[in-house]
Amino acid sequence: MFADLWAELLPIGRDDNTGGYRRYAWTEADMTCRAWFARTATQLGLRTDCDGNGNLWAWWGRPGEQAAVVTGSHLDSVPDGGAYDGPLGVVSAFAAIGRLRSSGFRPARPIAVAAFTEEEGARFGVACLGSRLLTGAIDTAAARQLRDGEGIALAQAMQQAGRDPSLLGPDDGLMSGLGAYIELHIEQGSALAGLGAAVGVADRIWPHGRWRLDFTGRADHAGTTRLADRRDPMLPFAATVLAARATAERLGALATVGKVITEPGASNAISAAVHCWLDARAPDEEILDQVVAGVWAAAVDTARQHGVQASRSAESVTPGVSFDAVLRDRIVGVLGAAGLPAPVLATGAGHDAGVLASRVPAAMLFVRNPSGVSHSPAEHADPADCEAGVTALAAVLADLAGE
Amino acid sequence: MFADLWAELLPIGRDDNTGGYRRYAWTEADMTCRAWFARTATQLGLRTDCDGNGNLWAWWGRPGEQAAVVTGSHLDSVPDGGAYDGPLGVVSAFAAIGRLRSSGFRPARPIAVAAFTEEEGARFGVACLGSRLLTGAIDTAAARQLRDGEGIALAQAMQQAGRDPSLLGPDDGLMSGLGAYIELHIEQGSALAGLGAAVGVADRIWPHGRWRLDFTGRADHAGTTRLADRRDPMLPFAATVLAARATAERLGALATVGKVITEPGASNAISAAVHCWLDARAPDEEILDQVVAGVWAAAVDTARQHGVQASRSAESVTPGVSFDAVLRDRIVGVLGAAGLPAPVLATGAGHDAGVLASRVPAAMLFVRNPSGVSHSPAEHADPADCEAGVTALAAVLADLAGE
Repeated sequence: MFADLWAELLPIGRDDNTGGYRRYAWTEADMTCRAWFARTATQLGLRTDCDGNGNLWAWWGRPGEQAAVVTGSHLDSVPDGGAYDGPLGVVSAFAAIGRLRSSGFRPARPIAVAAFTEEEGARFGVACLGSRLLTGAIDTAAARQLRDGEGIALAQAMQQAGRDPSLLGPDDGLMSGLGAYIELHIEQGSALAGLGAAVGVADRIWPHGRWRLDFTGRADHAGTTRLADRRDPMLPFAATVLAARATAERLGALATVGKVITEPGASNAISAAVHCWLDARAPDEEILDQVVAGVWAAAVDTARQHGVQASRSAESVTPGVSFDAVLRDRIVGVLGAAGLPAPVLATGAGHDAGVLASRVPAAMLFVRNPSGVSHSPAEHADPADCEAGVTALAAVLADLAGE
Repeated sequence: MFADLWAELLPIGRDDNTGGYRRYAWTEADMTCRAWFARTATQLGLRTDCDGNGNLWAWWGRPGEQAAVVTGSHLDSVPDGGAYDGPLGVVSAFAAIGRLRSSGFRPARPIAVAAFTEEEGARFGVACLGSRLLTGAIDTAAARQLRDGEGIALAQAMQQAGRDPSLLGPDDGLMSGLGAYIELHIEQGSALAGLGAAVGVADRIWPHGRWRLDFTGRADHAGTTRLADRRDPMLPFAATVLAARATAERLGALATVGKVITEPGASNAISAAVHCWLDARAPDEEILDQVVAGVWAAAVDTARQHGVQASRSAESVTPGVSFDAVLRDRIVGVLGAAGLPAPVLATGAGHDAGVLASRVPAAMLFVRNPSGVSHSPAEHADPADCEAGVTALAAVLADLAGE
């Protein structure tokens, strides 16, 4: 069943040239994914629903009677993302429910599959937008005004997709009926591969953030300005990129510069300004602060050497999340009993499970990613590991929703 | 007279926000500059002409009877360029002729003012396009197909400006009538300021070129990919930027990276690829080769350290130009006699004079630039130095075109 569902979803929103996915919220590709979700749920005998924030739900049992066990993930992608990040959790959820149904399992409490909207933030710039709206972690009025790269506001995009944006916002009634949220996800690193395990359990999400660094120098002619007379912001920028890597290595953290904009950006002109974004993640807030402080010190120091001004601003800083320890330990026990010993891992990536964790016990299962590659068309998980993920998820759902 | 002409030209094509100029070939700003050229020439009693390549000419005397002495520069600008780069030479040419006329000077050979089209290459991407076409240094059919950023071909742009693009190409009749070309230009560095001289004479143009460097790594999730597992092309790119500066310093050359493009360019993604352009200039071809070899070695070495592929391609390499030594020494003598001791300088910038030098004895006069800033709204020359430039140019024209 997993393989069939997976094959149905695979062509939707895939770019023929890159092989990567472009499934952005409320676009045609997203609507096709949503139709697939509804069709699949119906075939499984599940009752489908869409909350006011566009998150999809498929219910086995009646919500609200008992605290529900919810599993799922998201269907949207980063630009040219891989097939697994998100969809693996949704497909595995349906496949696990299919197995439980086939086995004659009768849940003592409702089980639901959820697919959250705009988890990647690829269209409107805020990651986990659907779960943030649902839980009230983002201001509804502000979210309604978020705009995509073409200036289309979220509210407008929802209207164009036939949804009513006046329904956006927290849904305490829905949230109060949830007893646990389990998100299965492809690992976005290669720790499980190193440990020889098909599945793992998340312990916590590292605190992480994005900082903008601006280096302002002076535009000059590249052919005539003596080196000593230059105020070239490209030089402290480059030194800062290298310092970010060295600082992260020293402190056991992650630091990445993946976006840079130069002004005027001419090959024969010394730049007037260079703007870059630092993505930093660390095991705890204190180390994260040290990473950012170390990178900033290097930026200031090298900027001064070149007569360049440096400034910074924090664009988003997300505290770390520790998943519910009781739930985590219970899942590790269930998987061990099922013959799937699951290492406990931390992760540097944000997830809807991390947002929901503020309101409901949440947990994550990871499926082995042999290369560790993610957010790339090369992202991959072996079919046998995907099946192991379904087995693990079915065992966890049976445990949590059983008698 | 200089000040009046200068004031007329100053508002044309200036951006109100940046204070920089956007005078691109065959645009409305350029057409307004061309109208100013024709009006000014007519007021001075000069006969105006436009050659098949759009270069403007204003004649004192009849072309072709004797080898003409031509002076001038260009009226177009880089994006947000300064007021002086180009226009100073044209305004000074008219002002020098005005002085010679007022003084009763009678030229023994024709004198002309020229304004060459698209010297900066800001619209169609090829610097010195007008002088290259005139001298046959660029293939006419290829030039006709050059396109601007909006896809408009040169031929089309000329038609829209009321010109006949079938006339594009070398003009040997015109060239054979020229005896010398003297281009006055603001210095694009601060060497004259350091030497305490108002004007200088160009010796040669450094060989220079542009190389594209491509670093290809692997897109990955910035939040989950261990540092050791990364193939991040941003790191060897950054190291190469710093190596370019160090290599240029060591070899007494210039190296600049002013343009960089990252893919996918997302703040939370390790880049799949980084593309950058190296601008390098050196006193001679051998040193230029050493600079490029040094930068490339650093690129290859640091790329290997990070599991990244590096490749390079030369986009344009322009040999050095040595200006006519006899003409240069004659000009230095004239200026010394006129009380304007003029140091002899090399320059790293290309100019129409460098293109014309292959066909006619050419020389350049530089006017002091106190800050050395060029290709920037902050480019500046003091009024007294501009007047000294006019004095120098008038003396040179009188010498070369006199009895």
